[in-house]
Amino acid sequence: MNKKIWYPLLAVSTLLSAWAHFYTSIQPLQFGTACLSLLFWAALLGKATESVAHYAGERIGGFLNATFGNAAELIIAIFLVKEGLFDMVKASITGSIIGNLLLVLGLSMFVGGVKYKTQNFNPVLAGHNASLMMLSVIALFVPAAFLTDPTRVTAQEDITVSVIIAVALILAYILWLIFSLVTHRKEMGASVDGMVDGIENEEHAIWSKWGSILVLVISTTFVAIQSEWLVHSVQSVAHTLGWTEMFVGAFLIAIIGNAAEHSAAIFLAMKNRMGAAVEIAIGSSLQIALFVAPMLVFVSLLFNRPMDLVFTNYEVAAVAVSALIASSVSRDGSTNWYEGILLLLVYVILGTVFFIV
Amino acid sequence: MNKKIWYPLLAVSTLLSAWAHFYTSIQPLQFGTACLSLLFWAALLGKATESVAHYAGERIGGFLNATFGNAAELIIAIFLVKEGLFDMVKASITGSIIGNLLLVLGLSMFVGGVKYKTQNFNPVLAGHNASLMMLSVIALFVPAAFLTDPTRVTAQEDITVSVIIAVALILAYILWLIFSLVTHRKEMGASVDGMVDGIENEEHAIWSKWGSILVLVISTTFVAIQSEWLVHSVQSVAHTLGWTEMFVGAFLIAIIGNAAEHSAAIFLAMKNRMGAAVEIAIGSSLQIALFVAPMLVFVSLLFNRPMDLVFTNYEVAAVAVSALIASSVSRDGSTNWYEGILLLLVYVILGTVFFIV
Amino acid sequence: MNKKIWYPLLAVSTLLSAWAHFYTSIQPLQFGTACLSLLFWAALLGKATESVAHYAGERIGGFLNATFGNAAELIIAIFLVKEGLFDMVKASITGSIIGNLLLVLGLSMFVGGVKYKTQNFNPVLAGHNASLMMLSVIALFVPAAFLTDPTRVTAQEDITVSVIIAVALILAYILWLIFSLVTHRKEMGASVDGMVDGIENEEHAIWSKWGSILVLVISTTFVAIQSEWLVHSVQSVAHTLGWTEMFVGAFLIAIIGNAAEHSAAIFLAMKNRMGAAVEIAIGSSLQIALFVAPMLVFVSLLFNRPMDLVFTNYEVAAVAVSALIASSVSRDGSTNWYEGILLLLVYVILGTVFFIV
Repeated sequence: MNKKIWYPLLAVSTLLSAWAHFYTSIQPLQFGTACLSLLFWAALLGKATESVAHYAGERIGGFLNATFGNAAELIIAIFLVKEGLFDMVKASITGSIIGNLLLVLGLSMFVGGVKYKTQNFNPVLAGHNASLMMLSVIALFVPAAFLTDPTRVTAQEDITVSVIIAVALILAYILWLIFSLVTHRKEMGASVDGMVDGIENEEHAIWSKWGSILVLVISTTFVAIQSEWLVHSVQSVAHTLGWTEMFVGAFLIAIIGNAAEHSAAIFLAMKNRMGAAVEIAIGSSLQIALFVAPMLVFVSLLFNRPMDLVFTNYEVAAVAVSALIASSVSRDGSTNWYEGILLLLVYVILGTVFFIV
Repeated sequence: MNKKIWYPLLAVSTLLSAWAHFYTSIQPLQFGTACLSLLFWAALLGKATESVAHYAGERIGGFLNATFGNAAELIIAIFLVKEGLFDMVKASITGSIIGNLLLVLGLSMFVGGVKYKTQNFNPVLAGHNASLMMLSVIALFVPAAFLTDPTRVTAQEDITVSVIIAVALILAYILWLIFSLVTHRKEMGASVDGMVDGIENEEHAIWSKWGSILVLVISTTFVAIQSEWLVHSVQSVAHTLGWTEMFVGAFLIAIIGNAAEHSAAIFLAMKNRMGAAVEIAIGSSLQIALFVAPMLVFVSLLFNRPMDLVFTNYEVAAVAVSALIASSVSRDGSTNWYEGILLLLVYVILGTVFFIV
Repeated sequence: MNKKIWYPLLAVSTLLSAWAHFYTSIQPLQFGTACLSLLFWAALLGKATESVAHYAGERIGGFLNATFGNAAELIIAIFLVKEGLFDMVKASITGSIIGNLLLVLGLSMFVGGVKYKTQNFNPVLAGHNASLMMLSVIALFVPAAFLTDPTRVTAQEDITVSVIIAVALILAYILWLIFSLVTHRKEMGASVDGMVDGIENEEHAIWSKWGSILVLVISTTFVAIQSEWLVHSVQSVAHTLGWTEMFVGAFLIAIIGNAAEHSAAIFLAMKNRMGAAVEIAIGSSLQIALFVAPMLVFVSLLFNRPMDLVFTNYEVAAVAVSALIASSVSRDGSTNWYEGILLLLVYVILGTVFFIV
């Protein structure tokens, strides 16, 4: 799109959304304007991510993006925990994980695959991601399988186990950062960088190194603000349409909350940088499972309203199914449009049953 | 076998079976003659498939075989749906999937592996097959996991979800054909064809190109006819022996209905064309899950007797177990006799519990 | 450690343990001395295994070690079966499998990975091991899934199915030995041996060929004796601490019973012989699932106290979870410290819930 039109549109949509939020109470208007503005900011975030990745290497760029992208979700979830809406929190955690693994990854593979016959990325990284997803599924599955018999497990033991699992997950996350960014940085990034170098040289960076980082920070901030406004209004809009809280949490909030990863990953996939796109999608769902979910357990303790990690069987089944198909598809470090379609179809099937149950 | 004896035996056994079916009511005689005749026709089908594959390339040959092989099962299942015998239909769908994944694939790997130390095929194709099997398992698992609580799901919602899942499965199947035969035909077939070329040149085609296709069509037709006669008589034979409908549907009907894939796959495995053998076995079970099962849902709507896709937990467990072990064994694109034994042992274990439960 | 101190310490700790066992009844003393002595014998076993492996090749060495290491567990389990303590037997089988897959393998990968950046082994072997683990999980899962409905399955049918599954498991085990040691010996061992040859030549064997075997046999014998004494005393020690039988069987007995594999595998991992370490850890858990568990079913028939193979849902879940994460981590034939941490974290999570449930 022409730059002369693009930046004014960004500014106008943001001002419109702010006006609707602060000076009106017409929820559909708030929803529509926030949606429009979010689209522009997410697109800018995509550009900024690419630019930072250009300077920082694919992995760091992907990691930064996943971090900033999930900031919005973490903030929303903390407010939900504060008000004791644990079912809503767990549904949005579930929805963010399956949304990233199926919708974001599926759309990236499909859109990228339509343009490029086969897209490749570091299979070693994909293998590690699969193992980490397995750990996440196990961490969600174990409390649901072992702690739901009230004749054997007390409420206190329930919280104790949840805290121990939360500590294990945070530990796995921190050590993963040390592993991938310090001790094995070269192994994790090497083959991707080498693969992309040829393409990179043709591109021109839009902003300078620090300029890119500034744009990244600003656009992430606005994506977070707009996400919150949008989620705020979408809830009442959804209730008037008669949708369940579980469906709203797992699909509507999650889709909107992940719009940033969404557009960034698809932009990268269209530029044949599938490694970074996969990193955003899978990295983001890993961060939710290994970082956001356990952090919320600790936050709930601070609020003196302890939340456990016992998800419903429906949620565990949905996450397990998503992790299995996503790791099956991405395991070989090579993707195509059909693999994207497979993930999207599973997303539609899960969406259908969550809508009805 | 000498051709001078072979073709007369084919003709005689077919005439005997037809006579037993139309002019007698002695069920064991109908069963025996149909069995014998089926053996010859299936062998001819194997030869014809090989010959067509010689002209069309391995994948198309394998695909054609899987299509014709499942025609018999589709016809039988449609009659069962028409009479509302949904449990029998689902048991035979389950049985066909696990029969192909465990019995046909297991026997092919074992028989081929006894002759050749290691047999190789395209691992990219194996990876895609594994992902598609995963989709099939998910499609079977999701309704069984989400729709069995009658307090949350109405009968109407049950059918609605089943139809949506059926549409998703058919879509996955059609797009898979476009993917493997149009957009990525070369990638899916290349390494297999390259691998086999050396062997191919030594062989002489028995029939001309169109002659092969004609023999393929005729032999498939007769395999279908004989399968139906055989299934017709085997049911009452089984009932006199005191076997359950579930065991008959899942094992007896499925084994006999898949005799075509069975012998064709084993013939190919013995000729060291494991790629085509795997394509027949896995391709056939995929076609049942992604094409036959959803088609039967639509057919049931036409008959005004809507059938859902809620399988029993036993059936879901059996399919999941089969898909896991089959994809674990075939994932690396290399097979040996021991991997065949593993699949056969799992088949025996499942057969035992289905017989008793 | 200096040899001049080491052997006297071994002798003294063994004599102390024997004295405590035969001439005192102070259980904590028996426990402490047996523990100390076991440590030395297990270390000697590690040395002997390495030395034998030096002469026999990695696989045979690893196999021998797994065999001798599980002798202790088999003997203990037979005594438990004789007394009809089936829940304890099943808990210790479960615990040995997950202990080998998570604790032994995890520690080996972590300790080896701290010293060497990446450790490699034969991925073909890893693929076969994964398929065999899958068979073990299926064999444990099928009775738990199909035989727990008392309205459909009689006690007699329960035993019949268990015996059939036991025969299938033993058959899989015997054929696996034929496969890996006779028909495909070269393929299974080749790449590992080739990889290690360079390192091997630098080492000096401590003992002669037959000397090594003698030390292996003697040390295995004493490890078994000390394990039994230790288990004998640890049970009453545990009971005074208020631990459940399930936790004691699955974690305490299993950890101590596997001390041999434990130290041997870690020693090998530290010498960068990850192939042998993985062979010990996974091979040992396979041997328990495919050999020890079915043997105990047959032994129970001899005692006229038939034991079935129906494990609790908790046990099946724990074994399935362990097999999934272990095969995900080892599938690529390459390990690092982080993959070890992942396995250890899952072990801690499972230990926590088993302690509480």
